Amino acid sequence: MSKNFAVIGVGGYIAPRHLRAIRDTGNQLLAAVDPKDSVGILDQYSFDVKFFTEIERFDRHLEKLRRGPEDGRIHLVSVCSPNYLHDSHCRLALRAGADVICEKPLVINPWNMDALHEIEEETKHRIYTILQLRVHPTLIQLRESLQKDNSVHDVELTYITSRGPWYQISWKGNADKSGGVATNIGVHFFDLLMWLFGSVNGIKVYHSDDQRMSGFIELEQARVRWFLSVDKNDLPDSAKSAGKTTYRSITVDGKEIEFSEGFTDLHTRVYEETLAGRGFGLADAHPSIDLTYAIRTAEISPKDELAHPFLKK
Amino acid sequence: MSKNFAVIGVGGYIAPRHLRAIRDTGNQLLAAVDPKDSVGILDQYSFDVKFFTEIERFDRHLEKLRRGPEDGRIHLVSVCSPNYLHDSHCRLALRAGADVICEKPLVINPWNMDALHEIEEETKHRIYTILQLRVHPTLIQLRESLQKDNSVHDVELTYITSRGPWYQISWKGNADKSGGVATNIGVHFFDLLMWLFGSVNGIKVYHSDDQRMSGFIELEQARVRWFLSVDKNDLPDSAKSAGKTTYRSITVDGKEIEFSEGFTDLHTRVYEETLAGRGFGLADAHPSIDLTYAIRTAEISPKDELAHPFLKK
Amino acid sequence: MSKNFAVIGVGGYIAPRHLRAIRDTGNQLLAAVDPKDSVGILDQYSFDVKFFTEIERFDRHLEKLRRGPEDGRIHLVSVCSPNYLHDSHCRLALRAGADVICEKPLVINPWNMDALHEIEEETKHRIYTILQLRVHPTLIQLRESLQKDNSVHDVELTYITSRGPWYQISWKGNADKSGGVATNIGVHFFDLLMWLFGSVNGIKVYHSDDQRMSGFIELEQARVRWFLSVDKNDLPDSAKSAGKTTYRSITVDGKEIEFSEGFTDLHTRVYEETLAGRGFGLADAHPSIDLTYAIRTAEISPKDELAHPFLKK
Amino acid sequence: MSKNFAVIGVGGYIAPRHLRAIRDTGNQLLAAVDPKDSVGILDQYSFDVKFFTEIERFDRHLEKLRRGPEDGRIHLVSVCSPNYLHDSHCRLALRAGADVICEKPLVINPWNMDALHEIEEETKHRIYTILQLRVHPTLIQLRESLQKDNSVHDVELTYITSRGPWYQISWKGNADKSGGVATNIGVHFFDLLMWLFGSVNGIKVYHSDDQRMSGFIELEQARVRWFLSVDKNDLPDSAKSAGKTTYRSITVDGKEIEFSEGFTDLHTRVYEETLAGRGFGLADAHPSIDLTYAIRTAEISPKDELAHPFLKK
Repeated sequence: MSKNFAVIGVGGYIAPRHLRAIRDTGNQLLAAVDPKDSVGILDQYSFDVKFFTEIERFDRHLEKLRRGPEDGRIHLVSVCSPNYLHDSHCRLALRAGADVICEKPLVINPWNMDALHEIEEETKHRIYTILQLRVHPTLIQLRESLQKDNSVHDVELTYITSRGPWYQISWKGNADKSGGVATNIGVHFFDLLMWLFGSVNGIKVYHSDDQRMSGFIELEQARVRWFLSVDKNDLPDSAKSAGKTTYRSITVDGKEIEFSEGFTDLHTRVYEETLAGRGFGLADAHPSIDLTYAIRTAEISPKDELAHPFLKK
Repeated sequence: MSKNFAVIGVGGYIAPRHLRAIRDTGNQLLAAVDPKDSVGILDQYSFDVKFFTEIERFDRHLEKLRRGPEDGRIHLVSVCSPNYLHDSHCRLALRAGADVICEKPLVINPWNMDALHEIEEETKHRIYTILQLRVHPTLIQLRESLQKDNSVHDVELTYITSRGPWYQISWKGNADKSGGVATNIGVHFFDLLMWLFGSVNGIKVYHSDDQRMSGFIELEQARVRWFLSVDKNDLPDSAKSAGKTTYRSITVDGKEIEFSEGFTDLHTRVYEETLAGRGFGLADAHPSIDLTYAIRTAEISPKDELAHPFLKK
Repeated sequence: MSKNFAVIGVGGYIAPRHLRAIRDTGNQLLAAVDPKDSVGILDQYSFDVKFFTEIERFDRHLEKLRRGPEDGRIHLVSVCSPNYLHDSHCRLALRAGADVICEKPLVINPWNMDALHEIEEETKHRIYTILQLRVHPTLIQLRESLQKDNSVHDVELTYITSRGPWYQISWKGNADKSGGVATNIGVHFFDLLMWLFGSVNGIKVYHSDDQRMSGFIELEQARVRWFLSVDKNDLPDSAKSAGKTTYRSITVDGKEIEFSEGFTDLHTRVYEETLAGRGFGLADAHPSIDLTYAIRTAEISPKDELAHPFLKK
Repeated sequence: MSKNFAVIGVGGYIAPRHLRAIRDTGNQLLAAVDPKDSVGILDQYSFDVKFFTEIERFDRHLEKLRRGPEDGRIHLVSVCSPNYLHDSHCRLALRAGADVICEKPLVINPWNMDALHEIEEETKHRIYTILQLRVHPTLIQLRESLQKDNSVHDVELTYITSRGPWYQISWKGNADKSGGVATNIGVHFFDLLMWLFGSVNGIKVYHSDDQRMSGFIELEQARVRWFLSVDKNDLPDSAKSAGKTTYRSITVDGKEIEFSEGFTDLHTRVYEETLAGRGFGLADAHPSIDLTYAIRTAEISPKDELAHPFLKK
């Protein structure tokens, strides 16, 4: 039987992928909320979505549906709000009798995971998150090949995705609200690395500012140099001259992992997995939340031979 | 020489057409403002746009540029904010030494036109508006053919564009803020009719609610029955069964005017005309503002033989 | 042992009475929330109040306290937000393990009472409301004297409290948010009347607009003509010439009930009663919510001999 | 003839003093704006104040009055908004044909003064600010006595005014919006010191955090050690044990200047002076804006013998 969804944060940047995933998995959207009212996008999916600009009125509506007939209840709530509101919106959904599919990062600070875990227990409902790289075919294949031996690899992660000045003005540029660059644009890469190479033995952070962070991570089976940035000036010349505004590269033992294809519908894939009972829950999300927190609060180390080559001398 | 633009309301629904028009006419966007901060769309156009979430800070920035070097000044401000804020945002732009290209309807109430006219005089800057149907090739051709004789035509205007419940929750559903259905979705059609068939001799309004309005207009050269709606239930069966959510038809003496093609870049065409000194100014906008105001405040007439056929019996 | 309080809506008009009541009953305020941040008033009560501008962050804080040591938990939440948010904020408090003291009207529409009742059952926490006239000494005395016989009385309720244009601009002037004049400024008078004279046999409403309402209520033991207004032009000449901006009168069989004294600390009295286990719960609030809803949705009756004398001829 | 006023920021903390000053100088308030709508305070002053929650609609109203009959125009606008909006709101008022009385600090950054000066020239209207200590009788007397000789004095300024956690959550705790502690709570003291002891020869700043700042200023006729704080823990024991939450002390050559009396109506006094043509204009405000900017951006000096005694060792 198809499921009823509600979306929190339907006016934001990432919401369209959730709307598409809800539709493409054969389910329906019944309610949505966003403080801003410019949500004409809804009309591309359904003309029967109750819309609210205040979270309190949305909560009232969910409560009403919860007390109503079974087939009108909200079964899942998709949370696409700014990062720092995720846990509160997850709680709202669980209390309203729904499960949750929450954008990454699930929370900014690890201790908020514990509170969510307890609410799961109390309500008997579950929180799932979007760790979309884990469903990417190429990366699944890579993981399988890596698991065949126990060697330790040299990995380099580079991700530069240019953002204009609006980024720093928005909640994304406020570390209290987004967690900063490593958390906001990096968390799924860090999750990927641990999923591929095992858990963390140690970290170093060489650089951290509003626009870029860089460091080193020792995993069970990899030594990882990483560099993340939202500043277009960090793009390598090859990207600049090709007029590209994003550069994404993961190399393993010097060999480029090619995974730029197949990115378009990963949200839908995660929805499929989640609806089939194979979603990524709190336990799956925990390591990357812990790691990004550790990175965010680490002391800065002097640059050494483990530093990423993009770090300016 | 290319012009510097700023956009007010860059996070809203119609802003992308202005951003595209600015780029496609060879000009550059330097500043933008919107109370909501989800404006990643800017990165598709430029990484050098100063962004503000408060109109006061935007005003400060424009003032700073106005006092700075000539080539850094804002020459034109595109106003894409909710209708009821248009005139205030036009004033802000004029005072900052810029001309304005303002979305339709320029204002909701005719008396606000006079105040804008005076500010144009005081500042020696000009306000232009988007009346995009006047630059549509098919409609220009139609106009030329109509001008060849003096006969009076029977015209039927039908426009149904389905909107979900969010529409009524948003500012668009608030008559004080949008002007209501006839003003918000109808103003450029009314402008078109007068541009084609001359000025208004009389009107009747048969029906008016939050979702639909319908009436009759006697123009110099046409008798117009019109019906405007945002309710999908008003779609004709032909559209419903074809899975369409919008139905747009103008017939002249029973003959359908085919103009659904060529809609995609009309904003860019209006920008070209405006930059070439052939923009639509206050005087051009005035008749449709007057007419939609008259329609909004008209007493409801009992239905008669002049009523649009879609009006339920 | 003293209780820990939190306040929702601490920046609003009525909050100071709650802050005072919390202090004067020997309890402490630990947390507060309001979307506006101009809450220096807190410093008059305590320098140790965690403050939030977003309800989501407030919710997170309450959850954290709920999982912490017993003596740090929030025992009671005072709800002083706009009327239409009351029920949602009550739910938030109950789920966070607290009881509630909620401003009147508890809700705008009767069906929201049922949902609150169910949440009380689920959480084993209770919602109390402010029906402050029930603790006014003069009115308690009146009630006792009335209960001595079974006669039916003629009652006239007149309450005119002048408000400037801001009132209609604020949420109070929006019937969806405040319930309108009879609900917003009248609910505790209607509660008083039923508390004094028994339940409702029938009502008439003669007049209803944004600024005033007037009608007739037949109670078990009274025939009540009532007139409520926020328009200073409705003040009787006696009040106008004395420079008064408020006129409040209840007459029983033509005799004025004098109760203008002793109004200052009624919130504190209600808090005392509530903390002593004699609070006014959902069942107490229900009749006045039902009655104001009936008044709000009644058809307008033609004026007759039962109409209040202030109703203009 | 009495003057017509409008107030920007009427819902905030300092607005009541402006409302009182407007009334007590025999003038009338005609319009007011604040994003929050809890402004019942207006009813204590007038029932005829047009109120707006959006600055754009307020601007439209002022424009309308400007074009209307002389006796309905706004002559003065009182600006009580958050500091970082002052200059934009001053511009709005000047352009609407009014003079301005603006709360201190007039602006946060000195370069914004120049832009205001130019707009004064363009509009022929004037901006005045509130430097209320300059009209305090005791301080006027002190100044006169100081001017009799040329000696250099040892001055100690200590001002601790306890604020709860809300302060840091509000715009006041955001240095971009308030200018930080020295600017927000100190600017009128720095103005006073220069008014009494002449211009600045040099400064040192020993400490600066969100809650307190401390430094040394060499003026023409004084060596000033200063300490400003919003943390109650900085209160001297004498104040703490007396249950005080504010400690204010200025000593000159070890002698306490007693000026705690006569603080209540200084805003009204400033209004009287301003209306009599003796207001404090841009030139008066400039030195304290420059000084607080220098303090805000100074490098921190190691503590030496010129440091204020409250600075923790």
